Amino acid sequence: MEFITGVAKKDTLEISEILAGDYEGKTIKVNGAVHTIRDMGDVAFVVLRKREGLLQCVYEEGVTKFDLKTLKEAATVEVEGVLAKEDRAPNGVELRLNTIRILSEPTEQMPLQISKWKLKTSLEAKLNYRPVSLRNVRERAKFRIQEGIVRGFRDFLYEQGFTEIHTPKLGAKSAEGGANLFKLEYFHRPAILQQSPQFYKQMMVGVFDRVFETAPVFRAEKHNTKRHLNEYTSLDFEMGYIDGFEDIMAMETGFLQYTMALLQKEYSRELKILGVTLPNTDKIPCVRFDVAKKQVAEKYNREIRNPYDLEPEEEALIGQYYKEECDADFVFVTHYPSKKRPFYAMDDPEDKTYTLSFDLLYHGLEITTGGQRIHSYPELLTKMEERGMTEEGMEQYLSAFKHGMPPHGGLGIGMERLTMQLLGEENVRETTLFPRDMSRLEP
Amino acid sequence: MEFITGVAKKDTLEISEILAGDYEGKTIKVNGAVHTIRDMGDVAFVVLRKREGLLQCVYEEGVTKFDLKTLKEAATVEVEGVLAKEDRAPNGVELRLNTIRILSEPTEQMPLQISKWKLKTSLEAKLNYRPVSLRNVRERAKFRIQEGIVRGFRDFLYEQGFTEIHTPKLGAKSAEGGANLFKLEYFHRPAILQQSPQFYKQMMVGVFDRVFETAPVFRAEKHNTKRHLNEYTSLDFEMGYIDGFEDIMAMETGFLQYTMALLQKEYSRELKILGVTLPNTDKIPCVRFDVAKKQVAEKYNREIRNPYDLEPEEEALIGQYYKEECDADFVFVTHYPSKKRPFYAMDDPEDKTYTLSFDLLYHGLEITTGGQRIHSYPELLTKMEERGMTEEGMEQYLSAFKHGMPPHGGLGIGMERLTMQLLGEENVRETTLFPRDMSRLEP
Repeated sequence: MEFITGVAKKDTLEISEILAGDYEGKTIKVNGAVHTIRDMGDVAFVVLRKREGLLQCVYEEGVTKFDLKTLKEAATVEVEGVLAKEDRAPNGVELRLNTIRILSEPTEQMPLQISKWKLKTSLEAKLNYRPVSLRNVRERAKFRIQEGIVRGFRDFLYEQGFTEIHTPKLGAKSAEGGANLFKLEYFHRPAILQQSPQFYKQMMVGVFDRVFETAPVFRAEKHNTKRHLNEYTSLDFEMGYIDGFEDIMAMETGFLQYTMALLQKEYSRELKILGVTLPNTDKIPCVRFDVAKKQVAEKYNREIRNPYDLEPEEEALIGQYYKEECDADFVFVTHYPSKKRPFYAMDDPEDKTYTLSFDLLYHGLEITTGGQRIHSYPELLTKMEERGMTEEGMEQYLSAFKHGMPPHGGLGIGMERLTMQLLGEENVRETTLFPRDMSRLEP
Repeated sequence: MEFITGVAKKDTLEISEILAGDYEGKTIKVNGAVHTIRDMGDVAFVVLRKREGLLQCVYEEGVTKFDLKTLKEAATVEVEGVLAKEDRAPNGVELRLNTIRILSEPTEQMPLQISKWKLKTSLEAKLNYRPVSLRNVRERAKFRIQEGIVRGFRDFLYEQGFTEIHTPKLGAKSAEGGANLFKLEYFHRPAILQQSPQFYKQMMVGVFDRVFETAPVFRAEKHNTKRHLNEYTSLDFEMGYIDGFEDIMAMETGFLQYTMALLQKEYSRELKILGVTLPNTDKIPCVRFDVAKKQVAEKYNREIRNPYDLEPEEEALIGQYYKEECDADFVFVTHYPSKKRPFYAMDDPEDKTYTLSFDLLYHGLEITTGGQRIHSYPELLTKMEERGMTEEGMEQYLSAFKHGMPPHGGLGIGMERLTMQLLGEENVRETTLFPRDMSRLEP
């Protein structure tokens, strides 16, 4: 009988193994995609693209047992050669080729010059040729950083006693009203795609005290801006037994601190490729919504048009203000007006026009909305009545409150936006693998 | 100016802190939900439910500064008391209460007796009262184990050089055909919900060599069985530069080994609560589809009705056969018939009626489908033509192959099914937080 016993070591090496081992002068095997071929006559440089970076291989006529003319850029190969030091090559090593074995071959010319350091093309072209454009070393590095952000979020929250949950994206009704919902038919019944795991994570606070989820959310918003997507990945947590919404901001600050340290440690290669300097997260200033509005109105000589809303330009100016005043990359803006927050937001007992809530701005862009939620069933009912809401479709959500819920709060972070701000990109589509917007449903 | 500087230590203790510290005879603060109250007259036992378990608190008339009659089960509280050893209490400690502060109160009687060790109620009732039934200690433990499975999947794959990706769930067309797709309108265009990240993860193999995703998938299948869901969480990976589909099975075996060790180490409390014995994953037998069919036909005297398909009963018998023959909990069944696999599956060059693919059965139930994929563009086109497929809507997917793809393969694991089999449950809804099936769209 045959058995599978687990992962066995391959005889091909990865870049980190080559650099960690003592392979100079030794014959090794490596596989990868042919990133570029630079033919100098008797010698050619064949650069392989591997998941950890680039590896320079040297083809020498007469030495390498292979006809260079039959090798194409974008082929995938397995090569054997002798490792040598070479300061001018990536990672300071090169492979002097003995043999090349072709694993697969392209059938068409590349539509983009992916081996250039920066892809000199429009965002539109990058998105239209997504499976190809992402092979560019800088393009793909963005999504390694994104991995680090999500990994940091989960690992930090595991450490803090949170439980990961998986809640349904198909539902009968949503947490925050109807206008921006995608609708579909579900076995002859109307259904929607959830725009947030809000109701579910609150219900689960009654079970696990602290929960988180990293999953897609769907918003049928008719925005076509540089910072909106119609589907994005939301990093959500919700925690019970809080003393106030400051606990939520503290947890988010902890996440950012943890994640920046993780990126520094595990993703330094990608940070270097992208030239990213990590922001300082030691202390994040915290300012009331109404105060922040006044501060930027005064400093930048700007009229306050609507005292109950922040315009995108005001957000940007608040970011600028705190960068100038205390060199801060992040600002918590607190006490948003009640009318701008959903029914489950807890009003400030000292002034019910405001809520115990916050947004986190990163370089002037909102990347998080959070706050304390109402935990008392009678209060929740009152607030719903004030807003003319019915209990229909919310019976299960409300039942959690009927049967006792601790004081709690939470937040949602837009993964693509946080990545965008960290990398200093101008458009959220730059940090989305396959963006979905009003005009883009493919690839 | 105010600043948020990170997570500060609270003055309330968690159970693990109490057990790790030297608190005997000391006054400590704890919060939690009132799980049960057992009133014995002058003394009462108030058991708190916390995320790490139960904590017995003792109310003594005259000592505890509080009127017990005002305390309700399901209230959430913060208590202060003196810690004492008590062998008969959970974790061997109890808290002799000084004060109780009520944080929130229930407004209705519990619909289920969640403080019973086993919830003696129907699955239907458990699902109808989900936010309440999950507060039962055994019920919630299932989803801690589920967390461990997903965490093991990710952590193992990070270690193996995989990159985590987030692919869109809204699309214009899907990887595996049309019948079982949920359809919706997307800004006046027809759209579907992805039933698998298949196309995306393959495209990303050209970028990162090895990728994984843990995300929801949507299947409009008109099955209403104990093992089907219309939305579930799929643990997917795809890896390049493989020598054969055996590499995929080896990686899955490695994942199972890693995850069982993680569960043993980090989730032993929940394993104990649920009475789970972890399966042996040292070596997993591997048998051809056609051979396995014959083996069970012979041993259990069963007629082979369709040589190209496995009936659920046959799967169960294969599980039984390998349990009896070599005490195996898992079996890889390989070389599924080509007509039962999607177009992108690589046919066996030795016999094109079969594919280089596999299912993993766990106690006789399929929990994984995987295999090697076609990586040659001309081969892919030929296979598509043979099946009468057009290239429409697949241009981007096909472009990845035009521009060179390494030999690769991958798999998808049903998170809820794997949890179900590990816990010995009879219905996949038992291990789904909020199941979606033909009749259930709420809560």
